[in-house]
Amino acid sequence: MPRVHNFCAGPCTLPLSVLEEAQGELVDFASTGMSLIELSHRSPEYDEVHRQTIDRFRAVFNVPEDRAVLLLQGGATLQFSMVPMNLLRPSERAGYVRSGSWGVAAERDAANYADVYPAWDGEPLSYARMPDEAELEVQAGTRYLHVTSNETIEGIRLPSFPNLDVPLVIDMSSDYLSRPIPWDVIDLVYGGVQKNLGPAGLAVVVIRRELLEQTNRNLGSYLRYDRHAEQDSLLNTPPMFAIYLMGKVLVWMQGLGSVEGMQERAERRSGAVYGAIDSSGGFYRSPVDPRHRSLMNIVFRLSSEDLEQRFLKEAEAEGLVNLKGHRSVGGVRASIYNAMTDDGVEALVAHMRSFRDANA
Amino acid sequence: MPRVHNFCAGPCTLPLSVLEEAQGELVDFASTGMSLIELSHRSPEYDEVHRQTIDRFRAVFNVPEDRAVLLLQGGATLQFSMVPMNLLRPSERAGYVRSGSWGVAAERDAANYADVYPAWDGEPLSYARMPDEAELEVQAGTRYLHVTSNETIEGIRLPSFPNLDVPLVIDMSSDYLSRPIPWDVIDLVYGGVQKNLGPAGLAVVVIRRELLEQTNRNLGSYLRYDRHAEQDSLLNTPPMFAIYLMGKVLVWMQGLGSVEGMQERAERRSGAVYGAIDSSGGFYRSPVDPRHRSLMNIVFRLSSEDLEQRFLKEAEAEGLVNLKGHRSVGGVRASIYNAMTDDGVEALVAHMRSFRDANA
Repeated sequence: MPRVHNFCAGPCTLPLSVLEEAQGELVDFASTGMSLIELSHRSPEYDEVHRQTIDRFRAVFNVPEDRAVLLLQGGATLQFSMVPMNLLRPSERAGYVRSGSWGVAAERDAANYADVYPAWDGEPLSYARMPDEAELEVQAGTRYLHVTSNETIEGIRLPSFPNLDVPLVIDMSSDYLSRPIPWDVIDLVYGGVQKNLGPAGLAVVVIRRELLEQTNRNLGSYLRYDRHAEQDSLLNTPPMFAIYLMGKVLVWMQGLGSVEGMQERAERRSGAVYGAIDSSGGFYRSPVDPRHRSLMNIVFRLSSEDLEQRFLKEAEAEGLVNLKGHRSVGGVRASIYNAMTDDGVEALVAHMRSFRDANA
Repeated sequence: MPRVHNFCAGPCTLPLSVLEEAQGELVDFASTGMSLIELSHRSPEYDEVHRQTIDRFRAVFNVPEDRAVLLLQGGATLQFSMVPMNLLRPSERAGYVRSGSWGVAAERDAANYADVYPAWDGEPLSYARMPDEAELEVQAGTRYLHVTSNETIEGIRLPSFPNLDVPLVIDMSSDYLSRPIPWDVIDLVYGGVQKNLGPAGLAVVVIRRELLEQTNRNLGSYLRYDRHAEQDSLLNTPPMFAIYLMGKVLVWMQGLGSVEGMQERAERRSGAVYGAIDSSGGFYRSPVDPRHRSLMNIVFRLSSEDLEQRFLKEAEAEGLVNLKGHRSVGGVRASIYNAMTDDGVEALVAHMRSFRDANA
């Protein structure tokens, strides 16, 4: 089967060169006479993969020296629990930005462990935009403000990060390593890697090292950031294949200019699709505030569901797949993560133009 | 590089046929034009893999209809926390069998969440055996008794499971699906799959369905068994590659007689290695009680560390790798999990005989 252009919102398309390399090594890794997934996680061969992947993550994302990078399981969803469990003491509270489906989910889980409150709520606006900095209501005694940098389902993103008196915790699952971030105002960043960085089954947490001395200790070992940091993310058997594959994706990203290169790429490519929407004379409509349009998940509607169905069906016939919007919002969603090819974006734009010409 | 015989205690050797199949499919899965790891976890193609893997797990392990099978991340280590978090109410307690390194670790994590106590402690016996049923001290108000069916590091196993008035919770990480278990006395079984069933990054929990109505609700979503069960282990993006690969290993196991076939295989093969120990005239010594010898992790010593080093070095030259004992106990450890080949076991026994003949 010829390779398709996969616009899935996650898991994501990966660089073909990475898949082919992994394929070549799957039965015999580095002349060990076994697969990488059969290696001991304490072996020198795996240790090199593990450490190089962490080092590359630091290099690609410009992670400051005073931060620890942790490779964990359970996705961003487990972090919804681990963040408040580790960071909040009984007298402290946290503000959560209800920016969309994921921001709401993060707050809901955190509420089991701590006193949390909404610092802003996008629900009355149908999540069509993110908050401006001045709209955020940070209450006294707030330990951190939780923000979701990009809402995958609604297709909006924070164009810049709030710089208030309170440290940020950021869920970057759907725009991880697609843009530089202001490390100085951030205590912790987390995200699943299955959109921009690798296969499902791995989350990366970046935490300010000095916080590891203050995190809560009355937790099981897997739930403690300090224990993972002490053990260099080898507290227990790590998800070796996902780590190995992410390492290869990071090498590929370095070849394209690291996070700054990914940002340029995202602006250029999302710009092409938004251009096709804006120049369609209303044939395609973006439901979100232009200032807060996601560069990763481009959501748009056509004039009827019937027309949307035909758009999707004809796209699929041309090898443009997984363009259907999330079941909760409908419409079309083109997810253009780091590894989407320029060819894929051009094919999508061409399809949008020809479909409009045929149906306008 | 020719394929080695990998006696690693985990991650484990996998069937070569499974690795080759996965290699063939890595770039284009089932003519989708993409890799399995690029599929949406909500796609029909992945859904089939997911459900077939669960169904096969049930079939191979004879899981009764009234149990839910959950595919989770975080390894057995996260289960050390999730079990007490979900199962114990404030007034209840749990007994833990300190049978070895893993039993002790499970109790230590659980103590953060609940009133737990040691129902038996093998430490004074240097963990050279498991408890007999009559030795277990189960206190009043005990919700469950936690046992580790096989201690990977010390090389001992429970030959049969206690049948007391209290339900069992069993950590089977290192002998999962290597023998049938008495489901009627068991409330929950868990284990990482990276020893007997697949690559690292996946744990399987089997829980009595009726318990899902009583588990604690004041937990973050990833930490709730009931939420995973409701969503058929698709609460968030699952570790798709590990699930896919485990599915292939389960097919391979079905071809060899499922869990009963694995048991026969384990008895025969461990018997050959223990035979080489017992017939060595004391050249090789097993430190564990013969009644409780592990069929998976065969631990033995030679008369000096120097001799052990030479044994390991010469084994490696013959392609027998990862035979070194755990750093905490030293000596030699041959882990003979489900996927170890008969050839590997025969080569190990031959090496043991020739090394003894040359050095006795």
